[in-house]
Amino acid sequence: MSGIFGVINRKGIDEGTASTAYYGIFSLQHRGQEAAGIAINNSGSFLVHKRDGMVADIFDDITLNTLQGSCAIAHARGSDGISGPDGIQPVVIRSSVGSIALSCDTAILNAERIREELKNQGAIFQTNTDTELILSLFSRNRIVTDTTEQALLKTMQELEGVYAMVIMTEDKLIAVRDPYGLRPLSLGKKGDEWMIASENCSFDALGAEYIRNLEPGEILSISAEEMSSIYYNDQISEAERIKNGKICIFEYVYVARPDSVIDGTNVFKSRYDAGKALAKIHPCDCDLVISAPDSGNPAALGFADGLGVTYGMGLLKNRYVGRTFIKSTQEQRELAVRLKFAVLKEAIRGKKVALVDDSLVRGTTMKHIINFLRDNGASEVHVRLASPEVRFPCYYGVNASSDNELPATHMTDDEICKMIGADSLGYITLDALKAALGGLICDSCSACFDGDYVAGKTEKK
Amino acid sequence: MSGIFGVINRKGIDEGTASTAYYGIFSLQHRGQEAAGIAINNSGSFLVHKRDGMVADIFDDITLNTLQGSCAIAHARGSDGISGPDGIQPVVIRSSVGSIALSCDTAILNAERIREELKNQGAIFQTNTDTELILSLFSRNRIVTDTTEQALLKTMQELEGVYAMVIMTEDKLIAVRDPYGLRPLSLGKKGDEWMIASENCSFDALGAEYIRNLEPGEILSISAEEMSSIYYNDQISEAERIKNGKICIFEYVYVARPDSVIDGTNVFKSRYDAGKALAKIHPCDCDLVISAPDSGNPAALGFADGLGVTYGMGLLKNRYVGRTFIKSTQEQRELAVRLKFAVLKEAIRGKKVALVDDSLVRGTTMKHIINFLRDNGASEVHVRLASPEVRFPCYYGVNASSDNELPATHMTDDEICKMIGADSLGYITLDALKAALGGLICDSCSACFDGDYVAGKTEKK
Amino acid sequence: MSGIFGVINRKGIDEGTASTAYYGIFSLQHRGQEAAGIAINNSGSFLVHKRDGMVADIFDDITLNTLQGSCAIAHARGSDGISGPDGIQPVVIRSSVGSIALSCDTAILNAERIREELKNQGAIFQTNTDTELILSLFSRNRIVTDTTEQALLKTMQELEGVYAMVIMTEDKLIAVRDPYGLRPLSLGKKGDEWMIASENCSFDALGAEYIRNLEPGEILSISAEEMSSIYYNDQISEAERIKNGKICIFEYVYVARPDSVIDGTNVFKSRYDAGKALAKIHPCDCDLVISAPDSGNPAALGFADGLGVTYGMGLLKNRYVGRTFIKSTQEQRELAVRLKFAVLKEAIRGKKVALVDDSLVRGTTMKHIINFLRDNGASEVHVRLASPEVRFPCYYGVNASSDNELPATHMTDDEICKMIGADSLGYITLDALKAALGGLICDSCSACFDGDYVAGKTEKK
Amino acid sequence: MSGIFGVINRKGIDEGTASTAYYGIFSLQHRGQEAAGIAINNSGSFLVHKRDGMVADIFDDITLNTLQGSCAIAHARGSDGISGPDGIQPVVIRSSVGSIALSCDTAILNAERIREELKNQGAIFQTNTDTELILSLFSRNRIVTDTTEQALLKTMQELEGVYAMVIMTEDKLIAVRDPYGLRPLSLGKKGDEWMIASENCSFDALGAEYIRNLEPGEILSISAEEMSSIYYNDQISEAERIKNGKICIFEYVYVARPDSVIDGTNVFKSRYDAGKALAKIHPCDCDLVISAPDSGNPAALGFADGLGVTYGMGLLKNRYVGRTFIKSTQEQRELAVRLKFAVLKEAIRGKKVALVDDSLVRGTTMKHIINFLRDNGASEVHVRLASPEVRFPCYYGVNASSDNELPATHMTDDEICKMIGADSLGYITLDALKAALGGLICDSCSACFDGDYVAGKTEKK
Repeated sequence: MSGIFGVINRKGIDEGTASTAYYGIFSLQHRGQEAAGIAINNSGSFLVHKRDGMVADIFDDITLNTLQGSCAIAHARGSDGISGPDGIQPVVIRSSVGSIALSCDTAILNAERIREELKNQGAIFQTNTDTELILSLFSRNRIVTDTTEQALLKTMQELEGVYAMVIMTEDKLIAVRDPYGLRPLSLGKKGDEWMIASENCSFDALGAEYIRNLEPGEILSISAEEMSSIYYNDQISEAERIKNGKICIFEYVYVARPDSVIDGTNVFKSRYDAGKALAKIHPCDCDLVISAPDSGNPAALGFADGLGVTYGMGLLKNRYVGRTFIKSTQEQRELAVRLKFAVLKEAIRGKKVALVDDSLVRGTTMKHIINFLRDNGASEVHVRLASPEVRFPCYYGVNASSDNELPATHMTDDEICKMIGADSLGYITLDALKAALGGLICDSCSACFDGDYVAGKTEKK
Repeated sequence: MSGIFGVINRKGIDEGTASTAYYGIFSLQHRGQEAAGIAINNSGSFLVHKRDGMVADIFDDITLNTLQGSCAIAHARGSDGISGPDGIQPVVIRSSVGSIALSCDTAILNAERIREELKNQGAIFQTNTDTELILSLFSRNRIVTDTTEQALLKTMQELEGVYAMVIMTEDKLIAVRDPYGLRPLSLGKKGDEWMIASENCSFDALGAEYIRNLEPGEILSISAEEMSSIYYNDQISEAERIKNGKICIFEYVYVARPDSVIDGTNVFKSRYDAGKALAKIHPCDCDLVISAPDSGNPAALGFADGLGVTYGMGLLKNRYVGRTFIKSTQEQRELAVRLKFAVLKEAIRGKKVALVDDSLVRGTTMKHIINFLRDNGASEVHVRLASPEVRFPCYYGVNASSDNELPATHMTDDEICKMIGADSLGYITLDALKAALGGLICDSCSACFDGDYVAGKTEKK
Repeated sequence: MSGIFGVINRKGIDEGTASTAYYGIFSLQHRGQEAAGIAINNSGSFLVHKRDGMVADIFDDITLNTLQGSCAIAHARGSDGISGPDGIQPVVIRSSVGSIALSCDTAILNAERIREELKNQGAIFQTNTDTELILSLFSRNRIVTDTTEQALLKTMQELEGVYAMVIMTEDKLIAVRDPYGLRPLSLGKKGDEWMIASENCSFDALGAEYIRNLEPGEILSISAEEMSSIYYNDQISEAERIKNGKICIFEYVYVARPDSVIDGTNVFKSRYDAGKALAKIHPCDCDLVISAPDSGNPAALGFADGLGVTYGMGLLKNRYVGRTFIKSTQEQRELAVRLKFAVLKEAIRGKKVALVDDSLVRGTTMKHIINFLRDNGASEVHVRLASPEVRFPCYYGVNASSDNELPATHMTDDEICKMIGADSLGYITLDALKAALGGLICDSCSACFDGDYVAGKTEKK
Repeated sequence: MSGIFGVINRKGIDEGTASTAYYGIFSLQHRGQEAAGIAINNSGSFLVHKRDGMVADIFDDITLNTLQGSCAIAHARGSDGISGPDGIQPVVIRSSVGSIALSCDTAILNAERIREELKNQGAIFQTNTDTELILSLFSRNRIVTDTTEQALLKTMQELEGVYAMVIMTEDKLIAVRDPYGLRPLSLGKKGDEWMIASENCSFDALGAEYIRNLEPGEILSISAEEMSSIYYNDQISEAERIKNGKICIFEYVYVARPDSVIDGTNVFKSRYDAGKALAKIHPCDCDLVISAPDSGNPAALGFADGLGVTYGMGLLKNRYVGRTFIKSTQEQRELAVRLKFAVLKEAIRGKKVALVDDSLVRGTTMKHIINFLRDNGASEVHVRLASPEVRFPCYYGVNASSDNELPATHMTDDEICKMIGADSLGYITLDALKAALGGLICDSCSACFDGDYVAGKTEKK
């Protein structure tokens, strides 16, 4: 997963373009905090500043001041299994049509095959990333098409998988959303600055106006002169295109920021409503509803309201947990959970507690937390989950776990309940979860719950 | 403010001493996140590793493995106005009685005068810190006393102000709490490791047992052979000593971690209870109670429960806010608040909101938040504060603001309400706040609210 | 200019391959000291470590120990006008025939044109370097040829200019010398390790045996199984190929290390002999012969012997001159020369001094040195140069000066003598310099002296 | 060993004070290249910039521009056995008389005893350096004396050993040379900038005028108003004081830069003359005289002239040898010598070579060089040394070797000749060496040759 952002000043001037890109990508760090970068178009010369680390550590005033220009794209990179500096974006190349920069959030399923084909046509690859692959494929397509947009369309026809991209050319900012619309992507505006962002929470942070989501398969092209779109699936109507979209359901469950609105659905409200629905499906005899902080907070509030039981604090999350954590021994791994979470003994002592979380993937941390709550005096711990059993691996980059790491693939709910040491365990149903996504204008991909891989699986080599 | 930690293995062996110090200080980072360090006694040779940054970035496995020994002290440093590497602790010196290391959390009021006196006796100072001053004073006192403890006692008689210290000598770990007991300090134990920590939340994180608070004026000395205390104010009874203690009331309001228990009072519960009391003093006609995250959370829960109105989420705090933030222009300062907080529009739209925070110091951020809430649809915003008006500057290092930066020194509550743009504003009274500190075994310093400086003011040069 | 090195262990084992590459490139740093790197073939997986700085600062024991493998190539990079990390070699790519690494020392004259052609075929470029260009061209040629060597031959047919390369494939080490043989390249051997180096001084440093120079246009391929060559110009006999070679004459004048032997000519001896010949052509009434250290030393010794006058020390070169030198004002520029050179007053006071240098390109430093010598008591300063007047810019990367920076393009010897403030000035003739290259098995390129550009000029865009 | 430098602008203005300090210390790097620093007096506030590394890497334009002021001191630090940042100078402290900065080049023989005494008076030490010791002792002496100069005099009376210092107070620059005058120290001037430097080569580099050496035991104090000296040994006449001086003879043999003049003797000339005298004492039947570069160059020239045999180049020294050299195995140690030196085969093949070096301390490198010369065709190698047998360890910091590492303590010249593999070996006599120091205005310390420790030995604890 990663966060992508783009901005173009349609007057062609610099009213703080780099600063906008900085704030834009800063607000998308929940999607990726390993590395970040900004590329800016300085009158045709593309400047780029990118490296490992957190956005606030990568850029300072001096750096931002050197990044002058009227169009920029940015990237916040998550853990993607690519080691070293290779995967840091944006990537800038020179092609037959000049300089091009790309930021993308992808899971290309036929990458291996395309890479082999391109190599067999003489292409070279300096990294193992989707980004370089897409740029190489695009460049080959560009020379047999008339426009950048046509070349992107042809590229989409060859790529299989999931992606959202922002592309900066010497005179345009282009945004692309995959034909399934699996990844979110939206358009915003502040004065003459038009923006593309993975989530519209960026626009709120910038005081910009949210215009609309990109449609599945849309190629939106913005220049000083015009703004227009072409579509991958233009043989069907716009209404159908939107309705057929398959936004990733895990965006609502966990990934997106609660203040974002994706494809018509408010993320916070969907979590709260899921919690409320969960209270009907799996009510619970308890004194106190607490959440697994912070991702479980909205669902826990909804659950408490649905149940009519007081919502309270029972666990705190330590905000200083760093990247280089030390856990060489078993005891240290337990310490790691104690460092990450603190229990408010006074609040839970002698209480029957309902512990609400957004999801349960492997269960290891949950087990330690339950143990920790009991040690500190909780008399009962009932676990409630605002998403169904995760039974299938995700090939689209959201969850890296394989089959045998997912307990729900081979254990019943009762067995899982026992494994994590809870007094009871209840999952929301997939139907109820989908019902909680009120206002959703499209369909969703729920492959991790039901195994229905809307974009297929990764090609075997 | 800073966090201090010490550990001694009374069997004289290394069962992960450095690791204990690491986890201990990690849990105290809310008291200081500018720099950190660990000093360890390796058979009489003192090793030290310290630098700028967050604890998790300063230490890795390799570093911790080089820190072998059976006694260690650690420090997490807050912003203290000392630039550069000078203020990073622990500080290790060689004196007439061998190597000594010191970690301290201090506000020495007569530092200038003592420094001049020592210089006039020939002492040299390489920094401008209290730490070097205390070590220099101690060393001079040590040569005219028989024991380290006596030298510390004499040093306490000369120092005026507020302090908590852990001192490591070649065979002991010593903890000192100032005669007023203004700073918290507690004793814990896990197996043969005995520990000293600014707050007992460290012990929970380590799975260690909390034994007791240090008494005001106590010098607690722990070696392999024995554990004993002497007292600054030993002319009065232990009961009186404790009862006379003046713990900083702001520890409960804001500073300490909610899961800590200080001088008999549970921090979370005191905040919750203050919120509940506030609901009686300043009730509010509202649809929703939200908190200024995260410091206002416990009081907001208490306020909601006291009022019988639903507690909900309205604001999110961005956890990626870094140190090198960019705010050169007015517009960027507003952006900074938007980056730090996100509004959950769906939750607050059209609502009469009660916004609860722990305290209001300058009011600038509060003003931006209220504005932000209104922009996103809140119909009314009522502010409730779980501490009284801050009318006096703190000379003890908790709050760096001077008189004219504190609106409550020269504005009425109504004027402040207008300034921040709230529909109403209500503070808890000092009596009600003190009543919320149920279980407190001592008195407290509330100089910031009432101007009664229990330890005096900083000496003018 | 840069230094290139390659090594393959023909038993396929690792007997210190990375260490050999390290020592090999260390000995070639006089050809480039901006950056360096090593790429090694670890059973098909190519590891690379490279960055800015001096070889000894880039590698340490830990790094070298991680570079395991039986074949490696290395690079020491000179100033080449490419900013940032882009030009640091070796460069590793994945192509249709697997991983390939390249280290090269090049001046490709038709780079712009080839790059455009490749872009128009869909290629993308992430840098502006010859290295990426060559790899991209090679990869396209590889898919229409049967072998790596044939693809390299085809690539040579398309490239115009000057180059020496070492290429590492998954099973071979390949060395390429341009058809003119403008850059030196030689083959050596120690046990089962076969080596390629820009100069054979590397072999002496490693205790390895020097085997032979590569022929102009040779593609030498070494694997565990076999060692064989093909030739660009295979239509002519080996004897003719060698005889037609055009080694850069500036290698003997300045570039190469004195202990190297290039194409049959000993570098030190050629400089000494040039100095001796110069004494016949431009004798001088002087008391003392000194050199401009250190590059003028061999010629000064020869000049002194030829003249029968004592050779002595008059100038010292400061070995601590760093990269980040400070010369913002005119006065500081003069200081810079004083810092770079020291005068031995005692040795030159009252003396008529003959100052011998290898060449005079711009003359600025020489002017300061003469002034400096006079200030310190030299009664006369006669300048003698062991190379002819530099009248033409070099398009082959040896000398970056353009026409109007070369005084000899528009000034007589007398005018230059006056400009630098010498009492007399004498250059060796080109014929005499060529005669001093005794033993040279080929012809040479002396374009900088006579304007005869054997490989043509850089193509204009 | 280290280099020290100080500058004061007597008009009290900044005409490039930091730049002068930079160039001054740059020219003294041959005395120490581990670390460096500059402290400057900015109107009473002392700024300091110092760290590990070479001078040119530590300072850049931006840093120098921040160092504003009219007085500065600087330091270039050699290997002194103090690990880490502790030994980096200048050291700045605050004392009873304000800020004081110190740069020194010392070997204090009674440091342990003084440190214990000071600790027993209550002093604390944060490092194990002479610098901190001297500052602490001085500060105690300052409070019982009337002036800084008197306090320095009292400090000199308590210190035993060897030292040169520059001290910066809030209004003065003070230089101190130990009573034996073992370390060199000189005074120079350029415009209103008055300077102190370890060697006068700094003044040449700066275009400054050399005024005089400091006398043994002199305390020279320079302020805007006046310049005056007091003397440790003021009971004797100036003439006697100078005559009794005991400058370290190894300054002439190896340490000082050839262009320096120390206590009346020109360093280059003394080396050349020693070489010439050596030719009379130990003539040699040889074809060629070469030097062990670069330290043996002057003596080799003198030897060649004395013998009437041609001086030539046979060995080159690689100027890229870095600090982090890799020599874990025996073979790699041999490689290290091959990397450090190159042999000019053509020049020495079949020749009877006289190899001249300044001194022979341990002999290990010499052995490898001789072997290397023979491997490359030298028919005979005769070693001639321009200093006597080193039979005694130096307690004054010049040579760290202990007794049993010095072959001359337990081997005859013949045995050493055999060990290093030379055909013959000849040392100059001590009398002849002293005779070569023509013009020396004082006596010298030759303890390493004759065991006469003019300043005593290091006190045992």
